Amino acid sequence: MSDSTTNLEFLKERVREFCEARDWDQFHNPKDLAIGTITEAAELLEIFRFKSEREGEELMKDAEARDEVAMEMADVLFMLLRLAQKYGFDLTQSLLRKLAINEERYPVEKARGRNVKYNKL
Amino acid sequence: MSDSTTNLEFLKERVREFCEARDWDQFHNPKDLAIGTITEAAELLEIFRFKSEREGEELMKDAEARDEVAMEMADVLFMLLRLAQKYGFDLTQSLLRKLAINEERYPVEKARGRNVKYNKL
Amino acid sequence: MSDSTTNLEFLKERVREFCEARDWDQFHNPKDLAIGTITEAAELLEIFRFKSEREGEELMKDAEARDEVAMEMADVLFMLLRLAQKYGFDLTQSLLRKLAINEERYPVEKARGRNVKYNKL
Amino acid sequence: MSDSTTNLEFLKERVREFCEARDWDQFHNPKDLAIGTITEAAELLEIFRFKSEREGEELMKDAEARDEVAMEMADVLFMLLRLAQKYGFDLTQSLLRKLAINEERYPVEKARGRNVKYNKL
Repeated sequence: MSDSTTNLEFLKERVREFCEARDWDQFHNPKDLAIGTITEAAELLEIFRFKSEREGEELMKDAEARDEVAMEMADVLFMLLRLAQKYGFDLTQSLLRKLAINEERYPVEKARGRNVKYNKL
Repeated sequence: MSDSTTNLEFLKERVREFCEARDWDQFHNPKDLAIGTITEAAELLEIFRFKSEREGEELMKDAEARDEVAMEMADVLFMLLRLAQKYGFDLTQSLLRKLAINEERYPVEKARGRNVKYNKL
Repeated sequence: MSDSTTNLEFLKERVREFCEARDWDQFHNPKDLAIGTITEAAELLEIFRFKSEREGEELMKDAEARDEVAMEMADVLFMLLRLAQKYGFDLTQSLLRKLAINEERYPVEKARGRNVKYNKL
Repeated sequence: MSDSTTNLEFLKERVREFCEARDWDQFHNPKDLAIGTITEAAELLEIFRFKSEREGEELMKDAEARDEVAMEMADVLFMLLRLAQKYGFDLTQSLLRKLAINEERYPVEKARGRNVKYNKL
């Protein structure tokens, strides 16, 4: 199973099974799942803390560091999937819709090669 | 297109096209994508700030609030997909592997109905 | 020494000595200190993750949990003090100025007993 | 008033007055104040998102950017002060205690010039 063969619904089901087997529905309200998302994102970020950009790039060639990054990305995704599964969000539709919004916020001719937020373009 | 019909590779490709059209490869090193992930997660969390759990649950029944939540979740997912696409991570494999790890960290009989981290179980 | 007897300059000096003794100036650019601030804030938040508000309040009566909270607050403050010390910010003046701005954004008669952001008041 | 002349107790009192005038005690439980801390830290970090280290350093010479940074630092400090004030934490004592702990975790001879966490020293 891989990103080329699996859809998000399949992953949502795996997450649902994991949580329901542990009777965690009672803890998984949207506020706490948002907290879960940010605290896991912090563990991902911490890997790069006080490292230069170049060192960050180098880590991407190191098997052990890649593994650490992959596991922290999985933790963030877990929280998103759980929030989506429990409260009926379709992540694919949300992502495609947000891309369409961002096409307007970041028109190619204005945003090309620029690292500023849309309200400063 | 929806979570039941679309695979993650397709979403990664949409994100790649969006970023490459804007010549953003130069800004999208792993450290900054991790920063992107946490700052978007903060916007998701901010929706629930100073709201009670009950108010958080109520927001899930409000169309406007749901839309806001969906768009912030999409922003977090965008950053994860971009990091995965640019640096060759398979999110499906990572998630399934992390679930296997967590099956051991949170055995059903010990973790059932408990809201503590594995190192305190 | 306590909050009633010590000023922020004194604390900034302690932090400066600690960092300079370790030759950490080279790592302490503003971007990484902002990363330091948020990753430490995440460790503070993680103490309350999946805990109800009531459980959060109860933790404030537990000596061990209080100690954990105090040490995480110290870590966040350390990063703020270091950023202020290294780049010449006066936190007292900033705080008082921000309070004045917020007096206007959150007028007492409109903000009283309300948990919404100023742009929604 | 400045960092050299004002003690932390004075700042805590200003924050207390601000919040009590708005009847915000009901929202200011420790969990939500930790959420407040991290969401404000995210606004600080966002200023540096997709900016290189060098660009981050340059921002420190720009009056407008400095002002933005100062106001976000003030927001993080506000949340820490409020948590400390409402639940009886002494930030000075906590910081000094944490520095003492970190003196042991990061011995000068081992930590000098190194950007790794103590558990990897």
